Amino acid sequence: MARFIKKMGLRKGAKPGSLIFVGEQQTDQVVIRVMQYDSKSLEEMEVDTIEQALAMINDRSMTWINIFGIHDPEVLAKLGTRFDIDVLLLEDMMNTDHRPKLSKDDNNLYVIAKLLSFNRDTGQIESDQLSLIAGKNVLVSLQEKPGTHFEAVRERIRKTKDRLRIIYSDYLAYALLDCMVDSYLDLLAEIGSSIDNLESEILEGKGKFTSQKIYRQRTELNFMRQVVLPLKELTFDLLKSDSILIRKETRGFIRDLYDHVVITHERIEVYFSIVADQKEIYNSLISSRANEIMKVLTIFAAIFIPLTFIAGIYGMNFENIPELKWTYGYLYFWGLIAVIGAGLLIYFKRKKWL
Amino acid sequence: MARFIKKMGLRKGAKPGSLIFVGEQQTDQVVIRVMQYDSKSLEEMEVDTIEQALAMINDRSMTWINIFGIHDPEVLAKLGTRFDIDVLLLEDMMNTDHRPKLSKDDNNLYVIAKLLSFNRDTGQIESDQLSLIAGKNVLVSLQEKPGTHFEAVRERIRKTKDRLRIIYSDYLAYALLDCMVDSYLDLLAEIGSSIDNLESEILEGKGKFTSQKIYRQRTELNFMRQVVLPLKELTFDLLKSDSILIRKETRGFIRDLYDHVVITHERIEVYFSIVADQKEIYNSLISSRANEIMKVLTIFAAIFIPLTFIAGIYGMNFENIPELKWTYGYLYFWGLIAVIGAGLLIYFKRKKWL
Amino acid sequence: MARFIKKMGLRKGAKPGSLIFVGEQQTDQVVIRVMQYDSKSLEEMEVDTIEQALAMINDRSMTWINIFGIHDPEVLAKLGTRFDIDVLLLEDMMNTDHRPKLSKDDNNLYVIAKLLSFNRDTGQIESDQLSLIAGKNVLVSLQEKPGTHFEAVRERIRKTKDRLRIIYSDYLAYALLDCMVDSYLDLLAEIGSSIDNLESEILEGKGKFTSQKIYRQRTELNFMRQVVLPLKELTFDLLKSDSILIRKETRGFIRDLYDHVVITHERIEVYFSIVADQKEIYNSLISSRANEIMKVLTIFAAIFIPLTFIAGIYGMNFENIPELKWTYGYLYFWGLIAVIGAGLLIYFKRKKWL
Amino acid sequence: MARFIKKMGLRKGAKPGSLIFVGEQQTDQVVIRVMQYDSKSLEEMEVDTIEQALAMINDRSMTWINIFGIHDPEVLAKLGTRFDIDVLLLEDMMNTDHRPKLSKDDNNLYVIAKLLSFNRDTGQIESDQLSLIAGKNVLVSLQEKPGTHFEAVRERIRKTKDRLRIIYSDYLAYALLDCMVDSYLDLLAEIGSSIDNLESEILEGKGKFTSQKIYRQRTELNFMRQVVLPLKELTFDLLKSDSILIRKETRGFIRDLYDHVVITHERIEVYFSIVADQKEIYNSLISSRANEIMKVLTIFAAIFIPLTFIAGIYGMNFENIPELKWTYGYLYFWGLIAVIGAGLLIYFKRKKWL
Amino acid sequence: MARFIKKMGLRKGAKPGSLIFVGEQQTDQVVIRVMQYDSKSLEEMEVDTIEQALAMINDRSMTWINIFGIHDPEVLAKLGTRFDIDVLLLEDMMNTDHRPKLSKDDNNLYVIAKLLSFNRDTGQIESDQLSLIAGKNVLVSLQEKPGTHFEAVRERIRKTKDRLRIIYSDYLAYALLDCMVDSYLDLLAEIGSSIDNLESEILEGKGKFTSQKIYRQRTELNFMRQVVLPLKELTFDLLKSDSILIRKETRGFIRDLYDHVVITHERIEVYFSIVADQKEIYNSLISSRANEIMKVLTIFAAIFIPLTFIAGIYGMNFENIPELKWTYGYLYFWGLIAVIGAGLLIYFKRKKWL
Repeated sequence: MARFIKKMGLRKGAKPGSLIFVGEQQTDQVVIRVMQYDSKSLEEMEVDTIEQALAMINDRSMTWINIFGIHDPEVLAKLGTRFDIDVLLLEDMMNTDHRPKLSKDDNNLYVIAKLLSFNRDTGQIESDQLSLIAGKNVLVSLQEKPGTHFEAVRERIRKTKDRLRIIYSDYLAYALLDCMVDSYLDLLAEIGSSIDNLESEILEGKGKFTSQKIYRQRTELNFMRQVVLPLKELTFDLLKSDSILIRKETRGFIRDLYDHVVITHERIEVYFSIVADQKEIYNSLISSRANEIMKVLTIFAAIFIPLTFIAGIYGMNFENIPELKWTYGYLYFWGLIAVIGAGLLIYFKRKKWL
Repeated sequence: MARFIKKMGLRKGAKPGSLIFVGEQQTDQVVIRVMQYDSKSLEEMEVDTIEQALAMINDRSMTWINIFGIHDPEVLAKLGTRFDIDVLLLEDMMNTDHRPKLSKDDNNLYVIAKLLSFNRDTGQIESDQLSLIAGKNVLVSLQEKPGTHFEAVRERIRKTKDRLRIIYSDYLAYALLDCMVDSYLDLLAEIGSSIDNLESEILEGKGKFTSQKIYRQRTELNFMRQVVLPLKELTFDLLKSDSILIRKETRGFIRDLYDHVVITHERIEVYFSIVADQKEIYNSLISSRANEIMKVLTIFAAIFIPLTFIAGIYGMNFENIPELKWTYGYLYFWGLIAVIGAGLLIYFKRKKWL
Repeated sequence: MARFIKKMGLRKGAKPGSLIFVGEQQTDQVVIRVMQYDSKSLEEMEVDTIEQALAMINDRSMTWINIFGIHDPEVLAKLGTRFDIDVLLLEDMMNTDHRPKLSKDDNNLYVIAKLLSFNRDTGQIESDQLSLIAGKNVLVSLQEKPGTHFEAVRERIRKTKDRLRIIYSDYLAYALLDCMVDSYLDLLAEIGSSIDNLESEILEGKGKFTSQKIYRQRTELNFMRQVVLPLKELTFDLLKSDSILIRKETRGFIRDLYDHVVITHERIEVYFSIVADQKEIYNSLISSRANEIMKVLTIFAAIFIPLTFIAGIYGMNFENIPELKWTYGYLYFWGLIAVIGAGLLIYFKRKKWL
Repeated sequence: MARFIKKMGLRKGAKPGSLIFVGEQQTDQVVIRVMQYDSKSLEEMEVDTIEQALAMINDRSMTWINIFGIHDPEVLAKLGTRFDIDVLLLEDMMNTDHRPKLSKDDNNLYVIAKLLSFNRDTGQIESDQLSLIAGKNVLVSLQEKPGTHFEAVRERIRKTKDRLRIIYSDYLAYALLDCMVDSYLDLLAEIGSSIDNLESEILEGKGKFTSQKIYRQRTELNFMRQVVLPLKELTFDLLKSDSILIRKETRGFIRDLYDHVVITHERIEVYFSIVADQKEIYNSLISSRANEIMKVLTIFAAIFIPLTFIAGIYGMNFENIPELKWTYGYLYFWGLIAVIGAGLLIYFKRKKWL
Repeated sequence: MARFIKKMGLRKGAKPGSLIFVGEQQTDQVVIRVMQYDSKSLEEMEVDTIEQALAMINDRSMTWINIFGIHDPEVLAKLGTRFDIDVLLLEDMMNTDHRPKLSKDDNNLYVIAKLLSFNRDTGQIESDQLSLIAGKNVLVSLQEKPGTHFEAVRERIRKTKDRLRIIYSDYLAYALLDCMVDSYLDLLAEIGSSIDNLESEILEGKGKFTSQKIYRQRTELNFMRQVVLPLKELTFDLLKSDSILIRKETRGFIRDLYDHVVITHERIEVYFSIVADQKEIYNSLISSRANEIMKVLTIFAAIFIPLTFIAGIYGMNFENIPELKWTYGYLYFWGLIAVIGAGLLIYFKRKKWL
């Protein structure tokens, strides 16, 4: 989980707009996949250089250039030149810590967002930066590392009759973002079920490291909130945007996307408050248990300490302890013990400790 | 309580607008009840197919089609075709986890909301999704499962002279929503009385699983808040809406409905803060009790441990312990015990522990 | 304290606008008092029926109809007819749980608010619903039960030269509301002084049921906040209202009223935060005291347990324990005890526990 | 510290605008000081009656009437008549509990604010009400009791060339308010340094009544916030005001005043959060210390209780306990003690309690 | 860390606009460095007096006057005269406690902000005030003490072809602010990594003074928030400003700057909530450990106290204790011990304490 900001030592004082990769490099090789299609034909290939990919763009078909690996300044510089992108924006795209952001100019829409997925092996949330450059009939998507996030979208494109087969980038961009938000909800379902587990663990008082688990849960929700809040803003701006790059037909879908982001955000807040309640009940149960432990201790100690004292008395070596010489002295001792013991038991019963 | 979001695995990456039922299926059969009336006549029947119901719609009477069971995509698809409903909206209606939502187009108003009821058997809140499609003189209501939520409304329709007997859907829609909000207030009264019970339980220090009960209470309020907050928004939008489907006469009722939703929301917030206070007083009382327990322990231990030590001394086998040979040695021992015991009692009295 | 919402079972699904009394009936008989005056004359009487009261209204004098008891639907229905009041509003007036509300139509202004008073016998806040119907030169006030809330206003009217002797209802309505808000401030002064008492109780660590008292205090403030917040809104609306029923001369007074409501609200919030602080310091003091108790226990136990062990050793019956046969064995024992005891005392002194 | 609202019994139901003094009377005698000056001359005197002071007002010079003691309704009534002041406003000026407030009419600006000072003898914040009536070339300031709050301003006036020597009241009013806000910052510096002291006290774990001190700190900040928040509002209104009584030249100063009030408010909030953090760390340290105490107790008890048990065994009087007759029985006993003791020490070492 | 406001005793009541230095003087000597450049040439020097520096300003080149040491009123007075600066603003620049602020007049833009750096030797955040006076082709920057904050910017200027080599102050001002914000992010990375360390310390339960460290962390974040919040406001105003001193080309950079400030602020809030969570888990872990300690104590005490009691019984000196005379008495005793001990072990096992 890339929770904390990376050190920016490298960048400090550098000329703004310098293309320096910030983050941990996730992949060695920059991989470029291209899908080019119109309503009838579809071409899918992997190309070696960004120039090749850019050369394929033409007016008669929709071109989706999918780039994995954003650590190479040269690739971004070439994209910048081809699409006439502000250098500050390119800088943001290379900073894997950047918050979700929407930007537009006369030719393109730009989206920076976060892909999240749950790694079952490590039990942790993994984050990948997604940048989109949406021109009229070209879409460039940039991710840190290869992944299958958008396989479902690719599958849809492969079907001839899908709505995606239009030569306009807005619907494809929407489809990618929708797919991303769906994966957030997926992730939340994952978190939801572990919150459910945590609940039984807490209420039944079993399970170890419960505090730590609660803490982890909050940290994860915190992280998701950090991702979703600016995305909500972004989607709202997209909805209100009057860019000619977004067709009227697509707006309904964007409203739906916005609704989903709102739901995601609401869920996160609800989960937050559930986890907060869990934390409080957990603490309250710990206190209750502490009381119970202390009651046991107190009862044992308060009953046996006086009794031991009495036994101690008759273990003394005074020459003249009359009771010791009584015929029924030992019986008398047990009687005394019984009376005192019973008295204390009644006392604790009255106090409702037993 | 359907508190946590269902897993969306099925939907992820699916084409938006695909009619896939999301949720737990609550009923096997789709049941369709129709009430058709004008100011003079009333017809009430159960039909087998959605087509039959739709065929009954005519201009001279008001038609209320009540559908129980929303898991069948075909039924929704046919409604979609008949009323020209956006496919994304149909998708929302089939997702039993959707948040309350108002939507409108040229022909219809759409409302998605939640019916809540208290199941006395399980002691839990049950939730059912309600979707309304309101055309000019037709209203389609969709619920997950058969129920008696709206029996009172049906009763009113059966009376000839009720205001409901008008050939316009807006008042009927209002009546259903009003009935729903009334049931929220009912539910809150239920919660209110269990909060009252909880209060005595806490203040008198009896009752078990108090932490857990407080937690449950908060979880329920959390759940209701999640339902009521978007409803407040929705009703406000309805109030401000200029749709021709809402007649001027009905607006006063919608304002009243809005007032009720506001009251519902305020109550929830008040209950929240009462439960929060209860939690805090409960924790504070636990601490006080822990102190009391420790005081008892400390008094017992602090008094008897020194006394036992003294008894221990005279139980030693040194050849030459002068006290042991004193004539009044044993008496002297008891005197010592009395002095030390009294001294400690006075000490604790001064500390106000006794 | 009518803190929790009453069950609405009776109302659920009932036709909106049905006049059903909701609440606990506070008085058997509906009592109707009328004050009718102009600048010169004053008539004061109690009438038997609402019709009699309504018949007295005339253009040349100001009529104040004071109704105690709102459980009789007939009385309200007649008021409704006479003043042409929306049936939903009448319904609100009969619901003693309704939140403060301002409403207006062409002829009248309507105010629903809460009268609060401190019952010294029970030590509790009592609440009474106040509804006002203000026409041009008639004011109807409705309360749940007879009371002396407005005696001061009546006294002022009885004086010939008071500003109240004007034939216009707005100033009388203001005077009643001002009197009500003054009583809130009175109540807050009462609460303030019990908060002051609570403070000494907490800081000096004496007094019983402190947690419970803090809790009660918060509950009362919560209740007042619930009453004052919507009143603030209401007064603000009144201030901004352009109703011809409010004369320019009265507006200055309404601004003053608003200021007082704002002050009331601010005080409540300040008290809230003071009580919150009290709760926290109380908990913190409980913890400190727990530590002190444990220190005492630990010191006693830690000193005497080792000593008792030593006494135990020399109480053993081994045949050959050399110390037992020493001439100064017993003295040696006491020396040992003194050394160990002193060592432990020094240890605890170092730890700053003594 | 006049923290809690005074009882308003006297006022309740009284005719609004009645001039009744509310508060504790701080001075016997009303003292009236007048400063009258133009750019060249200055007259300073104490007069006996308010009439004398009012008679001095003239167009050619600036007159500052400084009144100490606001309990005399006659003085206020005369001011009211002379400056044509709304009676409700006069009432507010006589209520020493009134919140800061700005008011204006055609002729004058009115400010009600609070002077705060730190009384080193009592260690408490003292509050004095300040009311300003600013006409074109006359300023009346009212305080509860004589004080030296504005001595610095008087000193500046006494210098011939100061900007204050202008025949316009706005700059003088500003100078007084600026002086007041400066004293707030002074007070905050005082509070800041006692917060600093509290910090060392808490972190080093020494000092007594720490909870109480934290509580006092919060109460004082609460009180200041109550004073500063409405003042912020007031200053903002003053800044946005288009009153002809405020010259263009003075606006820059008022903006500066507003900035200072904002800073004051920010400091208060920062101090609040620091004190909140202190409270939490203090509680957390108490818990840590409780743990430490309990560890000591547990280690002592857990080591010596088993050992004492063993000593007890060999103190038994069974006729046939073989160990007692062993030649090296006593040595064996010590060996046993050493082994068990060491075992327990290792156990606690492993648990990291030692 | 200059966390608390300095005492303003010196200033109180002083004429507003008096140039009095407020703060701790950080340097003896005022040091003045000048960089003067156009696209081709660059001159860099240190001058002795402010007059020399001001005399260098000319229209054909950009002049950056870098002043270290702001305690000399004369320097500021001369700047004030040369650039026609409002005296209140000069006062603010000399107050090292002033909050970040943007101001503008017809000729210049003024920025007051805070430079922050992490002093590795003391482990503390150090703060330095930065004031900028930006005219058309002159920029004056004032700092409290010499430092290397802007070395990177100077390096860029030294390169002939950098964008900074323009004869317009807006880009240089931006570059300085950007450099400052970069250093905030740097600082946050520092804090982030110590939060990370704290996390392991807490979760693994080792490390000392954890409460204190958490408290320090919060205090530092509090301090940064105090700096960044007004800066966010300031940058937003700068962005919306229509000053002709900011060229259209520079606006994109300012938006980028604003984005960075927003990110800084978001990080601070996220860190706050992480530290809050850490505090809570830490407290919760302390409570868990207290329970564990008490369990150990209780188990030891509850097992050995009854056993010791039994040993005590058979150590009594009653003449007639039958068991003592049994042949297998001692064996019987051990049997009894074994049974009781086992019983208690089973009891605690059942309670899940073992």
